[in-house]
Amino acid sequence: MADDRTTFLLDEDAIPTHWVNIAPDLPGDPPPPPLSPRTGEPAGPDDLAAIFPMGLIEQEVSMEPEIAIPAAVRDAYKLWRPTPLRRARRLEQALGTPARIYYKWEGVSPAGSHKPNTAVPQAYENLQAGVRKLSTETGAGQWGSSLAFACSLFDMECEVFMVGSSYDQKPYRRSMIQTWGATVHRSPSDLTEAGRANASHPTGSLGIAISEAVEVAAQREDTNYALGSVLNHVLLHQTVVGIEAIAQMEMAGDRPDVIVACVGGGSNFGGIVFPFLREKLRGDRDVRFVAAEPAACPTLTRGVYSYDYGDTAGLTPLMPMYTLGHDFVPPPVHAGGLRYHGDSPLVCALVKAGLVEARAYRQNETFEAAVRFARSEGIIPAPEPAHAIRGAIEEAMAAKEAGEERVILFNLCGHGNFDMAAYDAYLAGTLEDPEFSEADMNAALERLPAAPALG
Amino acid sequence: MADDRTTFLLDEDAIPTHWVNIAPDLPGDPPPPPLSPRTGEPAGPDDLAAIFPMGLIEQEVSMEPEIAIPAAVRDAYKLWRPTPLRRARRLEQALGTPARIYYKWEGVSPAGSHKPNTAVPQAYENLQAGVRKLSTETGAGQWGSSLAFACSLFDMECEVFMVGSSYDQKPYRRSMIQTWGATVHRSPSDLTEAGRANASHPTGSLGIAISEAVEVAAQREDTNYALGSVLNHVLLHQTVVGIEAIAQMEMAGDRPDVIVACVGGGSNFGGIVFPFLREKLRGDRDVRFVAAEPAACPTLTRGVYSYDYGDTAGLTPLMPMYTLGHDFVPPPVHAGGLRYHGDSPLVCALVKAGLVEARAYRQNETFEAAVRFARSEGIIPAPEPAHAIRGAIEEAMAAKEAGEERVILFNLCGHGNFDMAAYDAYLAGTLEDPEFSEADMNAALERLPAAPALG
Repeated sequence: MADDRTTFLLDEDAIPTHWVNIAPDLPGDPPPPPLSPRTGEPAGPDDLAAIFPMGLIEQEVSMEPEIAIPAAVRDAYKLWRPTPLRRARRLEQALGTPARIYYKWEGVSPAGSHKPNTAVPQAYENLQAGVRKLSTETGAGQWGSSLAFACSLFDMECEVFMVGSSYDQKPYRRSMIQTWGATVHRSPSDLTEAGRANASHPTGSLGIAISEAVEVAAQREDTNYALGSVLNHVLLHQTVVGIEAIAQMEMAGDRPDVIVACVGGGSNFGGIVFPFLREKLRGDRDVRFVAAEPAACPTLTRGVYSYDYGDTAGLTPLMPMYTLGHDFVPPPVHAGGLRYHGDSPLVCALVKAGLVEARAYRQNETFEAAVRFARSEGIIPAPEPAHAIRGAIEEAMAAKEAGEERVILFNLCGHGNFDMAAYDAYLAGTLEDPEFSEADMNAALERLPAAPALG
Repeated sequence: MADDRTTFLLDEDAIPTHWVNIAPDLPGDPPPPPLSPRTGEPAGPDDLAAIFPMGLIEQEVSMEPEIAIPAAVRDAYKLWRPTPLRRARRLEQALGTPARIYYKWEGVSPAGSHKPNTAVPQAYENLQAGVRKLSTETGAGQWGSSLAFACSLFDMECEVFMVGSSYDQKPYRRSMIQTWGATVHRSPSDLTEAGRANASHPTGSLGIAISEAVEVAAQREDTNYALGSVLNHVLLHQTVVGIEAIAQMEMAGDRPDVIVACVGGGSNFGGIVFPFLREKLRGDRDVRFVAAEPAACPTLTRGVYSYDYGDTAGLTPLMPMYTLGHDFVPPPVHAGGLRYHGDSPLVCALVKAGLVEARAYRQNETFEAAVRFARSEGIIPAPEPAHAIRGAIEEAMAAKEAGEERVILFNLCGHGNFDMAAYDAYLAGTLEDPEFSEADMNAALERLPAAPALG
């Protein structure tokens, strides 16, 4: 029977001791390997060693079902973990639904999202390898601020290449990065070849910023690179979210029938889903999974399953994933964290296998859900998890229609304190509602790299 | 012995059932009464009934030591309460101090500060009285956003007069207010006589905004006024902070030797201090209290103890308090919530009685403490509680100097997500460090209203 409380808290002793590695539990053949962009051959650990420490590379390719969380990382997690799980009772009432809606609230981290869950272990593994400086790129700044925070905990240096348009228009995430002691460069910068080659680019792009950060890490002995999503080890680190949620749903006396999370690169989705998915794959649980993405960048719902580059410039390994084409440029929706042409290979393989259902939502219907949530539950969500809220409300209304109880869990992965301009536009009725361009996508898909076809 | 955990959480069952009313425990004569601005005679409940509901007026003058928290208010508190209490282990290490530093973290509320603790019961008591619309003023927006949030929970209307300069320069708090469904007017507006009389004022002021909000509430049958600090019932509501902190310090196995909080109008200070103070006054506890204020607006350290108006225009009752003069205009420091010429009569009486020690800090040394905190504990604090952090660090360094253990507790009453421009200026070395003008203060003090002298 469902517990009558609203908030389910775990003591810090309940911070997970191990991350869940979903790879060994995946059904069917192992996922196709990433390919070297130079040789087209499967990329091995050596291809990554120039920019990643061996500790993270081992996690990236591990087939162990559980990987121990280092004591220093668990200690740092104590600054904000375990995060609360809440039942959205006021939202349920507002919807008049018989469904029970729960959300995991990751916005309580210092940086305001789930990103520090992986920033901290990435910084730590680099420090263990003797690396005291990290470079990375950031778009709107969620990832850059999280890595800056993590580096401040270990007295490490951090250098962030921030997409020029965000650097100019969203200065406050930049200020956060600097407050935690990191250096921020407007990208394109004059510090790298990739930046100088694009010096005249007016706004910069995530592709250019990645190229700058990777170049710095590849060329300097003392510097490594860190990525905030997509890769296996990043999703691995995020599974603390789902592990805690399993314990908290037990406290609540409820079992989710469906779990909803937004997908950009896939780390917040994998983080909450994989621990539940493992139980499902082992026959211990019956639950559906919904991946919510923006209709302006509908990777999982409209993309093709193919090998493609992870970045715009074609410097990264080729990865097996749903893609809109590596040089497809999505319209500038406010959910900047979801504007990615591809997705985590792990998440894509699950969609391909029919284990995850993907849905795309328009920008205005997403903000409508966000405002509804804010006016019932209080929290003003970031535009990215607003997609998950939209999906959760859809499930709750379907349950009402069917007159059935349904237990819904979603991941509220960040707050909207730095996104209020988007709310302004929505409330003023001036928020754009862009559709993706099928013609642009098709043109980009024609430029997919030559690589073996995927089944 | 001190517990080895970092975070001390209470379950929602531990949300307090009663607020602590410090009035009946105060030593000596009862505090002098407020005086009507029209008659100069003691102001009674009737003087307040035009703009406040009787439920709040009764709380304002109550001599009951405990006042029950309505079930609907406790239910709303569940959206963010109980708030965490944390031991600042990383800050202790960075300081190399033998002191143990704890902080109560009020920034987890939807509005990001302690203000909703009183916004919710104020909205509720008005609703009980049949009032469905509240008006208020806001400076930088903390209070306005908190009242908007509270009104959204009870389906009440909310009208906020926002100081013009903040309305123009800090649009994101305004966006929050609107996201929660409230209406925001730039003050001076053309909706009130007070606004129209000041139509040419370029920036507006808190004084004008208060006058507009009070005028609207006094003239409209269906509208009441709500104030975010200073008054007894506001401090009463905030005592949930200290009541929880007492329980959490017990979990931590520690007893605070000193409690530090910033003071603007006094509500965050009273909130954490009064429950501990009551135990001290009853002989059950030995603890010091430190009130931290900005050197740019040094009410408690440099003001005179006298009757003065609560607002600039002289519309409110005369209150017995430390004041810099009701028309003294403090320099524009970023801690907008601390730029008040007076202070809560209750807090002032405690300073006068020697039960509270007041200290004033300059803006740059305050931000130095804030950045130190952010780089060790992660959280980027609002400029207001940065004054409390400064005070706590001072206590910790004194303990180090003396080679003694000392247990320090401070109230971290809000996050700095909407204050990043101030951090920008600090990190760039361009943050001003204004002193208050003694000449301006003396001139303002010469304009104190005629009223009985205070002992």
